[in-house]
Amino acid sequence: MTASHVSGLPASLHPPILRHLALYIVVAKILNVTPLDSKQSLQQPSLTISGNLGKDSMLVQLLLLSSILLTCVSNGNAGVTSSFIRNEWPSVDIPLDNEVFAVPKGYNAPQQVHITQGDYDGRAVIISWVTADEPGSNQVRVGLSEGKYDFVAEGTVHNYTFYNYKSGYIHQCLVGDLQYDTKYYYAIGDGDSSRKFWFKTPPEIDPDASYKFGIIGDLGQTFNSLSTLKHCMQTSAQTILFVGDLSYADRYDNHDVGVRWDSWGRFVEPSAAYQPWIWSAGNHEIEYFPHMGEVIPFRNYLHRYPTPYPASKSSSPLWYAVRRASAHIIVLSSYSPFVKYTPQWRWLEEELKRVDREKTPWLIVLMHAPIYNSNNAHFMEGESMRVVFESWFCQYKVDVIFAGHVHAYERSYRISNIRPDSSNPVPDKSAPVYITVGDGGNQEGLANRFRDPQPDYSAFREASYGHSTLEIKNRTHAIYHWNRNDEGKRVPTDSFVLHNQYWGNNRRRRKLKKNHLHSVVATLQVGENLDLLSMGM
Amino acid sequence: MTASHVSGLPASLHPPILRHLALYIVVAKILNVTPLDSKQSLQQPSLTISGNLGKDSMLVQLLLLSSILLTCVSNGNAGVTSSFIRNEWPSVDIPLDNEVFAVPKGYNAPQQVHITQGDYDGRAVIISWVTADEPGSNQVRVGLSEGKYDFVAEGTVHNYTFYNYKSGYIHQCLVGDLQYDTKYYYAIGDGDSSRKFWFKTPPEIDPDASYKFGIIGDLGQTFNSLSTLKHCMQTSAQTILFVGDLSYADRYDNHDVGVRWDSWGRFVEPSAAYQPWIWSAGNHEIEYFPHMGEVIPFRNYLHRYPTPYPASKSSSPLWYAVRRASAHIIVLSSYSPFVKYTPQWRWLEEELKRVDREKTPWLIVLMHAPIYNSNNAHFMEGESMRVVFESWFCQYKVDVIFAGHVHAYERSYRISNIRPDSSNPVPDKSAPVYITVGDGGNQEGLANRFRDPQPDYSAFREASYGHSTLEIKNRTHAIYHWNRNDEGKRVPTDSFVLHNQYWGNNRRRRKLKKNHLHSVVATLQVGENLDLLSMGM
Repeated sequence: MTASHVSGLPASLHPPILRHLALYIVVAKILNVTPLDSKQSLQQPSLTISGNLGKDSMLVQLLLLSSILLTCVSNGNAGVTSSFIRNEWPSVDIPLDNEVFAVPKGYNAPQQVHITQGDYDGRAVIISWVTADEPGSNQVRVGLSEGKYDFVAEGTVHNYTFYNYKSGYIHQCLVGDLQYDTKYYYAIGDGDSSRKFWFKTPPEIDPDASYKFGIIGDLGQTFNSLSTLKHCMQTSAQTILFVGDLSYADRYDNHDVGVRWDSWGRFVEPSAAYQPWIWSAGNHEIEYFPHMGEVIPFRNYLHRYPTPYPASKSSSPLWYAVRRASAHIIVLSSYSPFVKYTPQWRWLEEELKRVDREKTPWLIVLMHAPIYNSNNAHFMEGESMRVVFESWFCQYKVDVIFAGHVHAYERSYRISNIRPDSSNPVPDKSAPVYITVGDGGNQEGLANRFRDPQPDYSAFREASYGHSTLEIKNRTHAIYHWNRNDEGKRVPTDSFVLHNQYWGNNRRRRKLKKNHLHSVVATLQVGENLDLLSMGM
Repeated sequence: MTASHVSGLPASLHPPILRHLALYIVVAKILNVTPLDSKQSLQQPSLTISGNLGKDSMLVQLLLLSSILLTCVSNGNAGVTSSFIRNEWPSVDIPLDNEVFAVPKGYNAPQQVHITQGDYDGRAVIISWVTADEPGSNQVRVGLSEGKYDFVAEGTVHNYTFYNYKSGYIHQCLVGDLQYDTKYYYAIGDGDSSRKFWFKTPPEIDPDASYKFGIIGDLGQTFNSLSTLKHCMQTSAQTILFVGDLSYADRYDNHDVGVRWDSWGRFVEPSAAYQPWIWSAGNHEIEYFPHMGEVIPFRNYLHRYPTPYPASKSSSPLWYAVRRASAHIIVLSSYSPFVKYTPQWRWLEEELKRVDREKTPWLIVLMHAPIYNSNNAHFMEGESMRVVFESWFCQYKVDVIFAGHVHAYERSYRISNIRPDSSNPVPDKSAPVYITVGDGGNQEGLANRFRDPQPDYSAFREASYGHSTLEIKNRTHAIYHWNRNDEGKRVPTDSFVLHNQYWGNNRRRRKLKKNHLHSVVATLQVGENLDLLSMGM
């Protein structure tokens, strides 16, 4: 597979610099920005897409420019292996007495506060917290302004033991019947020890609802993890899609396993108490410890991180789906049964039928072990799931699949390996883009040995820490960035416009109602030359 | 891959008739039988293997002759697709009022009696039975002669509900500290309703211990199932290796699911109360029924069919190992997690290290979904497990892998697909023989559409009902038959000598102690010409 196979453009027109310039033009047009340099040889029409997308345009210009300049240093092959070398913090966990793990003041004060979506469509949240000294109240007080709580939701409390560790009192409370697109304030805990937070519900399910996701994987609790978390909080991402491997507490033994689950819960609270984290489980959640008599998979994780699985008719908290704004997000479990006839397989078969791209144009899948990945670490470990699910991913035109597991960043072209007469991946317009973001910064360090030569399916790869953002603009376009942790700064490094796999299709576009016609024409014409190009992103 | 690639013999010497004649000579020599026609062109030495194997020699002659004659009608390609057409019973379950499902007479009489190995090495059995009316006694009375019970073992009882079905009282009793190679009589139940059975323990773990296994898969409860069961009971197989899909009760709804688990328990009792059945689970054991609110996999199966999994340090009754006579038998679960990092993967990694071919030369693996299978039914469904475990199967030189799932018989050559530079199976002396015996006779009928042309890896295939036997003779040789159900008769159809993958290796043979030398030389010389040939069996 060469670049020209992927893009449909002559190879001579296809080095990374041109791809990024072309992208820049598309983004600029979507955002109604004047391009810095609209390369006329690409013969872009001068139509612009109307809409209220002008804000942040200067920032986008800068980001894209930096992206272009950064990519200039890469080689001219189809795929890019970034040669960027960055300073990093040592791959050791932050000491327990560091302030990032500080227990909140006050007797029995709620700690490890985190929220996740609580229903199928985004009108509910599950709020979780831990009290250390006694069970205390299970109530969440909720209101529309700070300090004024109009209603109360009652949750549950439980605790558990893991080897010789005894957990705190874990509270979980479903708060439902919320209004869309509304900021809510909530308080938990008793008396002087009570604590206050807020969250914002997503807009109502709508094909053109804009929404910004952050994507983090393999986070851990090192100083690199802290950079990732802080950088992600700077991006104004409204919800975090977490692709597995949370605390790396399984790197500890006996009592300390539970201790490091607790410290991680406090570590992510500054984000997770305010923004829903959509959880998926990784191998570090399995915690199969025969020497400790702990052999039931996912025990600590399942006790601590509830998911709204019944809302999507799943039978397990490990695989489920939520809809949020214009996105349908499917969470798969790499380490649960997934072959034909198993509950996860049967559930996914039904859930994919429930996806309605007219309502939620963006179909996003999360899993831990990547299906396509050209790092030596964990190479081909996603193959078992690939042979089972890849044909569905193409059939249902999944837009993008985020995975973790490999401690480096990588992005694929749109490729598939589902032809019975071949065993190599080939360009496939119906295939998802596969993105590996296992670079959250945990104590295991970076996976810096990529396979050489870079396989044809690999578009961009770099062994740095970071996270991604996916900013859905409307039913047709979303802007994606991978943000490297660079000397304490967040540097958007791999950026592209994601064309929707359903609404980006010409046939669908022609079916659009009249009131969408103006933007449709613009999208169509802007997209004509770049459609195949964006395949490769 | 052609026949000559596999055997190392010129293709002209390799049609099925020659292969079977050569086999016949080997078997005749092992059994100290004069061959009917020892084709001198194969230059077999006239050494014979001594031992007490002369019995049944006439039967073996007849079986092998029939095998040769049957194979003559097949084509001359590397693999054989049998064109045999047989009459079969309709693929419907036997009515519940048939005598094969009869409830034993007497109030609360024990029913659905079955035994399985209870420890790692064969000195214990787990005896299970059901009482319908009340819990009754949990005791098993055991003795060395009929009616004279020297000791008593105390078991447990439980019951469960499944949707609107309520089970009987399920008793499970571990009887341990048994002597090897000993017939034991046992009685269960109270007063007039008590029932009497017997079982025979295996010989002590010994590399030359002979032992005969029957192999059954996908049995169900039709008249075809009954033929299979009866035929297997005729073979004097001492233990049944069951490769999943027991009752097909999941084809029923609501209350009848439990009812058909009960009827199947009574159906197999004439064999399973006397011979241990080594259980593995198939897809029909999953029973994921969201419409009935039953979504926990394997519930009925796990309540009814205990396995000795703690003895092999497994954390689940669905995967485990037992050692029996000269065999190490590993049971895998096709529908449980098996990818890297999962409990089954970690357990298998350790269990394979525990295999000691000096003590148990025969390494046998059971699973449900076949790894190699060229039927259109379930084609490639074993691929997910293949990519995870195949390299271990070759590294540890597994002798034979039995699977079910596909309702037809098939046998592979010794092949593997583990080379990084190729994605096709190639001949591999270290690879197991893969045998699919999903032809027990259940109500779903036969899978009679094989892929055309027959793939190079497929040695023999036939869409008939039947079962297999594996008769281990010593550390180097075992005799294998697939026995077709043919107009109510058992007809051995696919037969071969299985050379042990560890002791059949020349290097190992040279390491043998002096007292084994005579038979070693014979094996070596007999094997020289046929070693590569038997690779293909």
